[in-house]
Amino acid sequence: MAAPDADVSRLLPLAERLADAARAASLPIFRTARAAADNKSAAGFDPVTEADRAAERAMRDILARERPLDGVDGEEFGVSPGASGLLWRLDPIDGTRAFLAGLPVWTVLIGLEVEGRAALGVIDQPFTGERYAGCAGAATLAHCGRVEPLRVGACARLRDAVLATTDPFLFSPPERGAFEQVRATCRLTRYGLDAYAYARLAAGTIDVVVESGLQPHDVCALIPVIESAGGVVTDWRGAPADGGGVKGGQIVAAANRGILEEALVALRRSAN
Amino acid sequence: MAAPDADVSRLLPLAERLADAARAASLPIFRTARAAADNKSAAGFDPVTEADRAAERAMRDILARERPLDGVDGEEFGVSPGASGLLWRLDPIDGTRAFLAGLPVWTVLIGLEVEGRAALGVIDQPFTGERYAGCAGAATLAHCGRVEPLRVGACARLRDAVLATTDPFLFSPPERGAFEQVRATCRLTRYGLDAYAYARLAAGTIDVVVESGLQPHDVCALIPVIESAGGVVTDWRGAPADGGGVKGGQIVAAANRGILEEALVALRRSAN
Repeated sequence: MAAPDADVSRLLPLAERLADAARAASLPIFRTARAAADNKSAAGFDPVTEADRAAERAMRDILARERPLDGVDGEEFGVSPGASGLLWRLDPIDGTRAFLAGLPVWTVLIGLEVEGRAALGVIDQPFTGERYAGCAGAATLAHCGRVEPLRVGACARLRDAVLATTDPFLFSPPERGAFEQVRATCRLTRYGLDAYAYARLAAGTIDVVVESGLQPHDVCALIPVIESAGGVVTDWRGAPADGGGVKGGQIVAAANRGILEEALVALRRSAN
Repeated sequence: MAAPDADVSRLLPLAERLADAARAASLPIFRTARAAADNKSAAGFDPVTEADRAAERAMRDILARERPLDGVDGEEFGVSPGASGLLWRLDPIDGTRAFLAGLPVWTVLIGLEVEGRAALGVIDQPFTGERYAGCAGAATLAHCGRVEPLRVGACARLRDAVLATTDPFLFSPPERGAFEQVRATCRLTRYGLDAYAYARLAAGTIDVVVESGLQPHDVCALIPVIESAGGVVTDWRGAPADGGGVKGGQIVAAANRGILEEALVALRRSAN
């Protein structure tokens, strides 16, 4: 059955080995001709590359050998139910568009859901070699052989905040109205970062991230990293993003409750 | 007097030493409390940090010692006229917003203008250690001790292109209409990259960049890198970006003439 948080920490070395495997599968393809995309959407452009598939396969192979009773939910190969109460949420390349454009802000996401709660997360950027990890109240950034604790920033007011969202043109019209109100309040806004924005929120250089249309495998890894660094992640109503299973959809992350509440004044209006 | 292109290549090692000095001045401040911004605009938020000033000072010190007759135009400390016919265009941190947000896409720009033409350029990203350089038809990317030639991508149609712009909300209303038409045609769009987008255009993973409101020190370093990698840089009418002195304002860069002409169909409508 599900392990309590203290025990979940034991799985962090395994999560790091998954990240190592995904890194080895994806980085040799980055910025090469092999990074060409297939389109997996009939309705628009939803790119997937050889690197997405190779990285997820590498991670699933390890889990099949070492954690055969755990469930796996991966972006490219779907859900394999488990019997242990533990569910690995994998996004082999979060930010496939950034990957295609040769930008160093795509990430590998490894989240572990335990009895419906996001309990462990790794956000890995293979090109820069940055690895953000969070579990049971401890969050770290490993880079160039150094490991340092992660801590959210001290920004006290939304008007001083650094905001991020992946694509301002992906919102529905009512969502866009809500986002625009937040954007007009914040000091500056960055785009196109996918999960890397949440990693930098945990590290204190971004203060609020507002997105919609997310999948649970986009979100699961982020929650333990941000919460363990002192931040908060909720839906656009302010409800936990992982009560009774990690949610997707409309997500807001903030460095603290004060900024979150300011953003929610706008976001609640367009909450699903 | 001004050296012809072949001689300008002799100054590439000096340009690289300027980049080294700017890297040493800026990187220790990145992602620290010292990265806090002052606002240098009365009308809005135009951030400048200790790192911008320290990096430009470090570069100007070297030029004052070694090239006392050359002119210098730097973003933070303005224009110092010269007598040699050579003008160094320096942007110590292009993408100060990305710098503030802790993102690895700000760059140091070192451009050399000779008799009104952009003749040499270096685009340096200190955190990833990427250095893009171009001069006299040779463009290179140095990273992790390897140096490889830069070559633009082979994208033949705007509908297959990867587009970038720094901020879709910075355009004037007519500019925005023109940009929207380009965006709606392209396959995918990335934001918030400043000069890093042009570096990746030279490297073949971005195909077109559309911006307005640029300064000559934003543009000068980009032209030799892109042109030496096989690409083109013009204003929104299709006129050279460096005839009679490097221009700022409305700039479009593309991997080839075909894509450029497709983009200009939209952009000319809103050209100044």
